[in-house]
Amino acid sequence: MVGETLRQISDGAEEWLGKKIEVLDHGFVYLVDYMGNDQAIEQAARVSYGTGTRNVNETVGLIRYLMRHQHTTPFEMVELKFHAKMPIFVARQWVRHRTASINELSGRYSILDKEFYVPSPEVITTQSQDNKQGRGQALNVNTANKIRQLLIDDATRNYGHYASMLEEDGLAKELARMDLTLNFYTQWYWKANLHNTLRFLGLRMDPHAQWEIREYANAMSTIVRDSVPIAWKAFEDYQLNAVKLTSQEVAVLTQAIGAFSLILSQESVLHLAQNAGLTNKREQQEMLEKFKKMGLIK
Amino acid sequence: MVGETLRQISDGAEEWLGKKIEVLDHGFVYLVDYMGNDQAIEQAARVSYGTGTRNVNETVGLIRYLMRHQHTTPFEMVELKFHAKMPIFVARQWVRHRTASINELSGRYSILDKEFYVPSPEVITTQSQDNKQGRGQALNVNTANKIRQLLIDDATRNYGHYASMLEEDGLAKELARMDLTLNFYTQWYWKANLHNTLRFLGLRMDPHAQWEIREYANAMSTIVRDSVPIAWKAFEDYQLNAVKLTSQEVAVLTQAIGAFSLILSQESVLHLAQNAGLTNKREQQEMLEKFKKMGLIK
Amino acid sequence: MVGETLRQISDGAEEWLGKKIEVLDHGFVYLVDYMGNDQAIEQAARVSYGTGTRNVNETVGLIRYLMRHQHTTPFEMVELKFHAKMPIFVARQWVRHRTASINELSGRYSILDKEFYVPSPEVITTQSQDNKQGRGQALNVNTANKIRQLLIDDATRNYGHYASMLEEDGLAKELARMDLTLNFYTQWYWKANLHNTLRFLGLRMDPHAQWEIREYANAMSTIVRDSVPIAWKAFEDYQLNAVKLTSQEVAVLTQAIGAFSLILSQESVLHLAQNAGLTNKREQQEMLEKFKKMGLIK
Amino acid sequence: MVGETLRQISDGAEEWLGKKIEVLDHGFVYLVDYMGNDQAIEQAARVSYGTGTRNVNETVGLIRYLMRHQHTTPFEMVELKFHAKMPIFVARQWVRHRTASINELSGRYSILDKEFYVPSPEVITTQSQDNKQGRGQALNVNTANKIRQLLIDDATRNYGHYASMLEEDGLAKELARMDLTLNFYTQWYWKANLHNTLRFLGLRMDPHAQWEIREYANAMSTIVRDSVPIAWKAFEDYQLNAVKLTSQEVAVLTQAIGAFSLILSQESVLHLAQNAGLTNKREQQEMLEKFKKMGLIK
Repeated sequence: MVGETLRQISDGAEEWLGKKIEVLDHGFVYLVDYMGNDQAIEQAARVSYGTGTRNVNETVGLIRYLMRHQHTTPFEMVELKFHAKMPIFVARQWVRHRTASINELSGRYSILDKEFYVPSPEVITTQSQDNKQGRGQALNVNTANKIRQLLIDDATRNYGHYASMLEEDGLAKELARMDLTLNFYTQWYWKANLHNTLRFLGLRMDPHAQWEIREYANAMSTIVRDSVPIAWKAFEDYQLNAVKLTSQEVAVLTQAIGAFSLILSQESVLHLAQNAGLTNKREQQEMLEKFKKMGLIK
Repeated sequence: MVGETLRQISDGAEEWLGKKIEVLDHGFVYLVDYMGNDQAIEQAARVSYGTGTRNVNETVGLIRYLMRHQHTTPFEMVELKFHAKMPIFVARQWVRHRTASINELSGRYSILDKEFYVPSPEVITTQSQDNKQGRGQALNVNTANKIRQLLIDDATRNYGHYASMLEEDGLAKELARMDLTLNFYTQWYWKANLHNTLRFLGLRMDPHAQWEIREYANAMSTIVRDSVPIAWKAFEDYQLNAVKLTSQEVAVLTQAIGAFSLILSQESVLHLAQNAGLTNKREQQEMLEKFKKMGLIK
Repeated sequence: MVGETLRQISDGAEEWLGKKIEVLDHGFVYLVDYMGNDQAIEQAARVSYGTGTRNVNETVGLIRYLMRHQHTTPFEMVELKFHAKMPIFVARQWVRHRTASINELSGRYSILDKEFYVPSPEVITTQSQDNKQGRGQALNVNTANKIRQLLIDDATRNYGHYASMLEEDGLAKELARMDLTLNFYTQWYWKANLHNTLRFLGLRMDPHAQWEIREYANAMSTIVRDSVPIAWKAFEDYQLNAVKLTSQEVAVLTQAIGAFSLILSQESVLHLAQNAGLTNKREQQEMLEKFKKMGLIK
Repeated sequence: MVGETLRQISDGAEEWLGKKIEVLDHGFVYLVDYMGNDQAIEQAARVSYGTGTRNVNETVGLIRYLMRHQHTTPFEMVELKFHAKMPIFVARQWVRHRTASINELSGRYSILDKEFYVPSPEVITTQSQDNKQGRGQALNVNTANKIRQLLIDDATRNYGHYASMLEEDGLAKELARMDLTLNFYTQWYWKANLHNTLRFLGLRMDPHAQWEIREYANAMSTIVRDSVPIAWKAFEDYQLNAVKLTSQEVAVLTQAIGAFSLILSQESVLHLAQNAGLTNKREQQEMLEKFKKMGLIK
């Protein structure tokens, strides 16, 4: 239902309002409401700097500067509210992000639906060999299907018991629910500011996160990208796709280049930067300083 | 600039967007943006309870129930963003509410304006005798005016030095500002959810809060009241105007009534409740339970 | 292992360090570490008030004053760390208190033990009739025992499948765990400051909280009581056992007393206060003000 | 006063308890209390991983792994409480770290001392040319001394007025204080967990932070380093001295090396790593993966 407002509007966010993105076999996530857009980030930063709004180029430059330098408070000025439905074991990981507001379906008050997650055969994998908390290769189809059937049978049987304890025995809902398995679906409203949403996405889109929660993070990232495209691009460039080198790794890199008598000149580096689309003067300066600090430029 | 949106709209909040309320001699507060309305509170609670929306009466009943029973998370689903300008000593009290997002004017980056707070004569008061951190009576007009002049002279002189250190000596802004007095104005964007905003207002509208910050809280309360009228009324009835009796005070009250052989019958209490507009059945039940617990009803 | 320290010591807390309190059928909670004691609360408040430490009576008076007036920050100066083991559905309620630090057993990394909660027959109850999220009467013993057997059978069978999927099929732990039921035990370190711990206890010791989590809150309350006895007593008197009257309830009470022409004189009320052990002058004054505000004293 | 405790002890922290480090001309910071040590970090992590304690080498390896991979919750298990005295303009920057507990001296309740900060001549500098919020070169000694005298005169005069408004006019303290300048000293208790303390230090030890607050951060860093030496070293290696390359900078670096036909072999890189003391197998693996991702190794 379209209405009139004097508030800042994000055209990208408006497109996503109420549009469910399906995740896993019965889950979803969609945008319920939002506050602010890219300009809201700039506007808040301008309060700190005491200057008025400017042209688009300057908006981009400012937002990218804020992201690069971890000036995080202006990103708190945008707020996003999602409705998501996910297996309980996913909710248990998700809820550990403490800076969000949550209203979850209550199993003390409501009877849960007969909906549970069964992984597709291709994501039914072995324990990773080198990572004690990750997944390895897909199991063969027969084993995967056997496991699927087991999960289906157990969840179905337990739900039947849950239902009969409620209906026939009159058991309190808060007790009966303990017979349900961790792949049953729950749902919630989840609201966080952009800074904390990006933090959540950075951690949960990471390959080390469990595949199932990554599916939610990836779905949400599409909505966030369209809602604040300038901030999102900065997030990709300076966080998601950044590489953080430890003090020791810097030492190795410096020595490796030194060992091969490679000398990067400031001029050639700036030339390559131009080619790579790194044209912002301030950003070039920061790059040169890092390369010097790392001993890559004389 | 009016735009179209699919988001929930609060008609009351729309009226206040961008409208400055003047506070003190040079300060102000206005609503920059908002997310959600009374229905957004209900909607989030309905996720927990697993049921759909209902009629207006039920909305009111639900929101009042949530407020009465400290089910605070649905109130976190509404967000408010203000722009405020206030003396630094007020900002120092305000910033102690840690659950808000803030972007403040930076004295490292910007030159502060020559604007400082000078209290009106009628609020220039003695130290309270019985409250070590409060105010007492107004000082006589002559003394008040003398104090005002002193404050004006000091702030004016110091600002002159601030300006000359900046302009003539080229001193860094982050250093020069230390010569300014605590009544100089600063400003910020302040964003918080409704639950935390109400908590802020409850503490800062209180008569024990310093008069100057109360002026800001009072101004903001008008905006909040119009933005979420149902939640606000519940806040007034169950928080602002509630009376919390300590365990000892309950004992005294019970004994006082017992000493006079006063017997409140459930019937007469319900009759009075009806008169007082306390007509909600559940709320009446809660009242009877409290009165019984306090020994006021047989 | 006893060691020497220059830190403040709480004799009561020392007694509880490492001593497990058993909760439910396989759970526990014990104190792992603590920081500060009652004096640490006073000490922090004295920084605000700029005065030195005093005698014991004044410590008691100050701490009670802080609690009564919601001066919460000094209570943040004490920290408590617990190790607790509880069913997953209890952990799911507990984790919603966002101000604590938590390290939970990871089902992605570790194989969970074969330990699940089965309620005793006497706490296996019907759904409450008047409270949609509470419990009613105990079910008859036969039904209770049938339910217990069902829970045992389901958890045992599912754990068997969990184990075989891990061992025989080599399934990743993060996937296999989804077949476990919500009554399986998890465990965590939970660390929070005293203010937030008391808030947790106030909400979870409440009769509206689910019985199982109340058992944990009650166990922890014993440890907290002994660790900070002065603060705990204030918490009982001014929070746990306080009665909050809504604005409407005050109106009813005032009218009820007025209707019976009951006149409480300040003198008689103070006499009763003395009897009730309410001897602190400032607290008496606060009581008189509330009673006047409520129209109970002329 | 030495006492006996069953708690974990940090020998380094014990040494620092109550020992003031002087900062600026009248300020200080010292450690008031602490909870936990390096082993407490490991112990909490072991709950997640479900395994017992091990030898020292494994403790170091685990803590470094946690820091490298942003597993931040175990670092929340250590708590530090400081008493600090600093100019108000420093307190205003410091208080923006919202995750700490603070009790500050109240100017509503107490009369502030006649103590204000006057920078030494060598840190009285021009505004930076290339950084709108930084400092440049030291001003010449004459100008610096003139500025110092101005600050002394203004603070002295204003404090005299503050005192006379309080004593002669009986003005409320909460009003009189507004005539004080921002370089007057305040003080507080500041308590935070190790994770948030390190975050504070990372931001405030940074060369972009104002010099005055850096002095406090540097003083505190000495105390933290001695209190949790293993965690501190990891913080230095993986945070303080790490270099974060943006996605564009990686592209430039990769091309630069490619342009010079430099080929880093895995073997030679591992050899250099050994030389640089990077001997941990897992860490070497992570390095190789980053270098491959950056295109530095074939």
